[in-house]
Amino acid sequence: MPRQELEYPNEPYSTVKRLSARGRYSLKTIHQIVNSSHMLHVSFNSSDSPFPAILPMIGQMGSFDRPSADLDDVLELYLHGYVSSRIINLTRATPSDPSTPKGLPLSVAASHVDGLVLALTPNSHSLNYRSAVLFGHATLVTDVAEKLYAMELITNAIVPDRWRHTRVPPNAAEMQSTSVLRMRIATGSAKIRTGAPHDERGDIEDEELLERVWTGVVPMYQVFGEPVSGPYNKVEGVPGYLGEYAREANADSKRAAEEALVEEAPKKGSGAE
Amino acid sequence: MPRQELEYPNEPYSTVKRLSARGRYSLKTIHQIVNSSHMLHVSFNSSDSPFPAILPMIGQMGSFDRPSADLDDVLELYLHGYVSSRIINLTRATPSDPSTPKGLPLSVAASHVDGLVLALTPNSHSLNYRSAVLFGHATLVTDVAEKLYAMELITNAIVPDRWRHTRVPPNAAEMQSTSVLRMRIATGSAKIRTGAPHDERGDIEDEELLERVWTGVVPMYQVFGEPVSGPYNKVEGVPGYLGEYAREANADSKRAAEEALVEEAPKKGSGAE
Repeated sequence: MPRQELEYPNEPYSTVKRLSARGRYSLKTIHQIVNSSHMLHVSFNSSDSPFPAILPMIGQMGSFDRPSADLDDVLELYLHGYVSSRIINLTRATPSDPSTPKGLPLSVAASHVDGLVLALTPNSHSLNYRSAVLFGHATLVTDVAEKLYAMELITNAIVPDRWRHTRVPPNAAEMQSTSVLRMRIATGSAKIRTGAPHDERGDIEDEELLERVWTGVVPMYQVFGEPVSGPYNKVEGVPGYLGEYAREANADSKRAAEEALVEEAPKKGSGAE
Repeated sequence: MPRQELEYPNEPYSTVKRLSARGRYSLKTIHQIVNSSHMLHVSFNSSDSPFPAILPMIGQMGSFDRPSADLDDVLELYLHGYVSSRIINLTRATPSDPSTPKGLPLSVAASHVDGLVLALTPNSHSLNYRSAVLFGHATLVTDVAEKLYAMELITNAIVPDRWRHTRVPPNAAEMQSTSVLRMRIATGSAKIRTGAPHDERGDIEDEELLERVWTGVVPMYQVFGEPVSGPYNKVEGVPGYLGEYAREANADSKRAAEEALVEEAPKKGSGAE
């Protein structure tokens, strides 16, 4: 019997309303988009600003309690980067409403652009993309074992297997100076566009227009160039695990952009553009 | 006499605090990062959600009043994309405090990743990146001429000169169904990391470590693949303006990643990592 695919609950703030056929709620789809992003955008409120804060951070989803968990399992998001004292203080604040989960309410977005979609009219221009949003509550990781787990998870997300090829474990000063946030996920959603342009029937039937305007998709993807050694590097050549990752990642990125050229069958509802 | 370079004011919520030497406030630097981003992340609050909304949109900075304005001039951000009825209603709300500018308080982020920075220790791992944040107030563009200006600006940001190569002007139904937001900028900042890894002196003096761990930068950049025509395309070959743009953009992206290998001299203050 195939296992049921887990989905995030549809909250009013998380449900894809416009072009709802592009909405995806599967944990696996959302976690894949997040874990393949080199940079996430994190947003939260603080009482000293009239605007929500929005900042880039690096992060990775995993499970400290069940490190062998798959991408389609319930996971937490570990965030590392520019964790300011402002954020840290906010994560410590106790909610006034005891039914609210502890921690700083956080929204996290991850997006990949897979192509430019060029249509007959400006309005039908679009992008092929995969975009995910997660909502949850962040607290500071204080347990040493969990912090080490998260540091290894995030380092190996930069380059697979990098952790054991560096000077580890971190020393006491490094453990002290590193802040890791754990975000428990309340819910999330993804929005995905694939395929060719969609124009209005009236334009597609206009022969003069069709002969004048090129329509189609320009695939886009991220590539790694040749690694460039730093001023104090003494290792000759590029290590196997690094060179192999760069080659594989380049092939994967290109393939994702090519796969996005083919329109995915809508899951439910309507809405094409 | 050289013209003074304009900078955004330092507000508590916009000032780069950690590694402050990486902070940039010049309008030109910030506007360049925003206008070269295919996707922006937009964040705002709405009373029906415990979390700030965060969503991808496309946008471009320009000036309707002075269309010939340069990137280093005062500009506004025009946003297009998934402008939900929720956002539109929020932009219409009148602030309770009359000294507050009209419109929805919005935060917008744009980020480019230029490379993976691989150091001797996990803690010193980093990314080369260019990241910008803008804060301001968004209202719906209702003037027809301004809306057309913004639609052309945004279409030509997808592919330069695309607008006049499509079926324009938009018809009444298209004008009606298209929403464009204009964000007046209150302030903003950028954060940029360039250069090789920086490790602690103790690690750099550890010969065994230096001989074991490869250190350096893996450049990263976005590329366009060969354009793929859509099902109803009748134009043979790829039009010159499109092919030329894709080639130039690929060369520019690669160059940006290569330039990021060289450390920029810090402008002021301290902070290296």
